[in-house]
Amino acid sequence: MDYKLAEINSREIIPGYHGKLIHAQHLSLAFWEVEEGAEVPMHAHSNEQVMQVLEGQFQFTVGDVKRIYGPGELVVIPPDTEHGGKALTPCKLMDVFSPVREEYK
Amino acid sequence: MDYKLAEINSREIIPGYHGKLIHAQHLSLAFWEVEEGAEVPMHAHSNEQVMQVLEGQFQFTVGDVKRIYGPGELVVIPPDTEHGGKALTPCKLMDVFSPVREEYK
Repeated sequence: MDYKLAEINSREIIPGYHGKLIHAQHLSLAFWEVEEGAEVPMHAHSNEQVMQVLEGQFQFTVGDVKRIYGPGELVVIPPDTEHGGKALTPCKLMDVFSPVREEYK
Repeated sequence: MDYKLAEINSREIIPGYHGKLIHAQHLSLAFWEVEEGAEVPMHAHSNEQVMQVLEGQFQFTVGDVKRIYGPGELVVIPPDTEHGGKALTPCKLMDVFSPVREEYK
């Protein structure tokens, strides 16, 4: 299956978080454009997640570690681990999940 | 766990394919710099894979579909599906695998 990011409609899944989603069999990918100041409240899910900052400065808390991440930085969020964040600037982020993030379908 | 791509050593896993690897519990990510002309022979593995072209033009065959992919294009390679490719220009590619790609550890 082929995808062009330019042709995927984005959905505002959380206020200020506009995501293009790709779901495969074991994996989901999300490409986010995030408005400055938009926050994801602390939450957890059984899916493992890897978050990459593509552009901007993103304040991210995983468990009890709170840091600011920039382009080229990645964070592994283990299953069932509380995490949340805030875009300190407009951001582009990528998330990868396994298993598939069913709530985003 | 945090990673900075700039601080991960790259390994030439296939001739001309220089990869920075991140392995989590269910996911592996690979960020490749590929030399022009470098080829991955047709192969298959039980890991599901999603390939994204970040830069360059990459000729990729999945099953019996052969196409040229450019920036912003992604391809899902189902488990146990033959695939292989060739960099028509210098390329930057990202692969995501689930389960973890043990051979790349």
